[in-house]
Amino acid sequence: MKMTTVEEAEKLVLAQTRDYGTQSLPFEQALGYVLAENLQADRDLPPFNRVTMDGIAVKHAAIEKGIHTFRIKATQAAGDQPVEINELDECIEIMTGAVLPASVDTVIRYEDVEISAGQASLNVIDVKRGQNLHLQGVDKKQNDIIALSGQPVSPAIISVAASVGKTHLLVKKMPRVVIISSGDELVDVDETPLPYQIRKSNSYTVKAVLKQHHINADILHIPDEPSITREKIQHCLQHYDVLLLSGGISMGKFDYIPQALEESEVEKLFHKVAQRPGKPFWFGRHNNGALVFAFPGNPVATFMCLHRYFLTWLSATLGLPAKARLYGVLGKDFTFQPALQYYLQVKLQSNRQGQLIAMPVEGNGSGDFANLADTEAFLELPLEKSEFKAGEVFKVWRFNHDF
Amino acid sequence: MKMTTVEEAEKLVLAQTRDYGTQSLPFEQALGYVLAENLQADRDLPPFNRVTMDGIAVKHAAIEKGIHTFRIKATQAAGDQPVEINELDECIEIMTGAVLPASVDTVIRYEDVEISAGQASLNVIDVKRGQNLHLQGVDKKQNDIIALSGQPVSPAIISVAASVGKTHLLVKKMPRVVIISSGDELVDVDETPLPYQIRKSNSYTVKAVLKQHHINADILHIPDEPSITREKIQHCLQHYDVLLLSGGISMGKFDYIPQALEESEVEKLFHKVAQRPGKPFWFGRHNNGALVFAFPGNPVATFMCLHRYFLTWLSATLGLPAKARLYGVLGKDFTFQPALQYYLQVKLQSNRQGQLIAMPVEGNGSGDFANLADTEAFLELPLEKSEFKAGEVFKVWRFNHDF
Repeated sequence: MKMTTVEEAEKLVLAQTRDYGTQSLPFEQALGYVLAENLQADRDLPPFNRVTMDGIAVKHAAIEKGIHTFRIKATQAAGDQPVEINELDECIEIMTGAVLPASVDTVIRYEDVEISAGQASLNVIDVKRGQNLHLQGVDKKQNDIIALSGQPVSPAIISVAASVGKTHLLVKKMPRVVIISSGDELVDVDETPLPYQIRKSNSYTVKAVLKQHHINADILHIPDEPSITREKIQHCLQHYDVLLLSGGISMGKFDYIPQALEESEVEKLFHKVAQRPGKPFWFGRHNNGALVFAFPGNPVATFMCLHRYFLTWLSATLGLPAKARLYGVLGKDFTFQPALQYYLQVKLQSNRQGQLIAMPVEGNGSGDFANLADTEAFLELPLEKSEFKAGEVFKVWRFNHDF
Repeated sequence: MKMTTVEEAEKLVLAQTRDYGTQSLPFEQALGYVLAENLQADRDLPPFNRVTMDGIAVKHAAIEKGIHTFRIKATQAAGDQPVEINELDECIEIMTGAVLPASVDTVIRYEDVEISAGQASLNVIDVKRGQNLHLQGVDKKQNDIIALSGQPVSPAIISVAASVGKTHLLVKKMPRVVIISSGDELVDVDETPLPYQIRKSNSYTVKAVLKQHHINADILHIPDEPSITREKIQHCLQHYDVLLLSGGISMGKFDYIPQALEESEVEKLFHKVAQRPGKPFWFGRHNNGALVFAFPGNPVATFMCLHRYFLTWLSATLGLPAKARLYGVLGKDFTFQPALQYYLQVKLQSNRQGQLIAMPVEGNGSGDFANLADTEAFLELPLEKSEFKAGEVFKVWRFNHDF
């Protein structure tokens, strides 16, 4: 039986995107969510002819007529109502951010004038009409779209929202996710394991990655008992959009998960992918739309599949544009024989040619999670080859970053 | 007067790193903070000789003696106490994750045996002593350091913490930060500005960036009134570690901030940097250690200075290693005449040579914040040059990312 390839698996996963609707959040809380509405300018930007230097405002026609000394009629700060001049030899002392009064058209900065006894005299000859102004509507016109729906809410979007008075933002709802571990060998983090037990850690890792993507997932542990397994799985299928399992999907006698999924009418879309780590990855859907990503129990495999498949699915589900490919240069020769797509753990460095160098960090196989902490990405090595040479370029999958 | 260069400014800022001490957090909440202790293995990793395939466990000596059929004495799951054999022709049916019993030394996977009537017969000839095992202590020995102090707590570190039973993690304390805006032209986000007013937005942008770095900053607005300005500044200098100001530091008549800082005994370390945007950037310290980063009011300038200076300072203050430089290739010709270091807003793309291409996105000067939402980095163009050619490589400063 031909194993599912990584490309086929990705395609099958992406065929199951969902729409979980939208919600309105106070704009500051929307940081990191995906915007689900266009933001429009509520008025022109800038909303008025805005002064960009502290100095004096005059009518340029006065200078053209040879006037170089102006009586200071008033001082106008940012936020003040505009003050008009009545005579050509009058000026307004004016501050950055102020509205340009209608009776003047040019600003001369303090550095270029001499002020004494209520008069300002020009030090410069070259004064351009309209200088030191940011004119109304130059950036955007009222009702122009200034931020498009379908992008993550960044600090820059927060700024845009604040400036147009959007106190609430419509964002995409996140799926409800439960992270399920199984196996009687697992004890809790605060327990002291017996010699043949280990502590749960995968669930917390997955939860941390999801937290970085603004999903607050629940955690559930299922003991090795068939009826409890079935009951818990069925409960989760009714109450969550996505079940993320790690472990319990191999051929072991006490792996009750596959049977429970089958009995719960979860349709298998694929099982086993031609990749390492993560070969036993299982993916399926319930007829109510709930999805099951069942990752192998090995921590590095879970971590890889989570980034390679679940986050890719999440990004598509939230309507984000397909992520631009990131490529890196393999930093030293590497050999991998099996006909599997290999995900090599690498550190990334930038060289003076602007290239991203991906340097392999030797782990000792699947189980060594400490190694992941020293790396920042997987380099995707194609299954057709087994010899990979320094200088060859491959796809990079970074950890811990936004889409 | 020679203006402070970017390099000098950075050096002066980095001379003011501080140590705000440490705090203990429940390990899941520590995500994104900087680890302030080494994590050690509480026992060997793996803690026992761990079975890595479902199948049968035998003593290899039996195979050497020509035994190919084994009586199944018992089944041992992960998390079960080990079950020993007494005779060479016995085997244990055993599951992934289980402890290898002391009386056996080799695991043969289900795919390579035939099981019937309580007996398992080998399908294969080539069985290696010790196969399908992850031996005790191969990854780490008890008390080995498995995660070093001084790195951000990533999901991988969360996993390490969980696996060694660290329910709490010691992390670096973040500085207490207040973000201060000033100017009577500013109204709140939920207000409708009069024609000569605008809404506050800078403070929310800065707050959002800090939130991404796990700093929960306060926001304060100071009206254009000298005695209130002085009083508020003095209060903040006593109650915060860092004051981040945007605006109010120019030569304007109503900019009371410089005077208030002077009267509050804040020593100016520099004012004005040879850069655009952000030339009027002001930096100082109070004799109690409090720092004042006073950014220009222009939103893009504030954003640039925040990333280029404050986050660089924060990273050093938290004891993180200096960030590796990131370099990008300018995507098209660009000209910038003034003798200022220019921070060009760019989009980043990766090409098939593994190069990061930085493509300029045309804004219309300093005030257009909507432009920032379309870009992901600043490209740092040196002040000595004015013509920048496509294909030349420059430093990249990304937004919105961890250190």
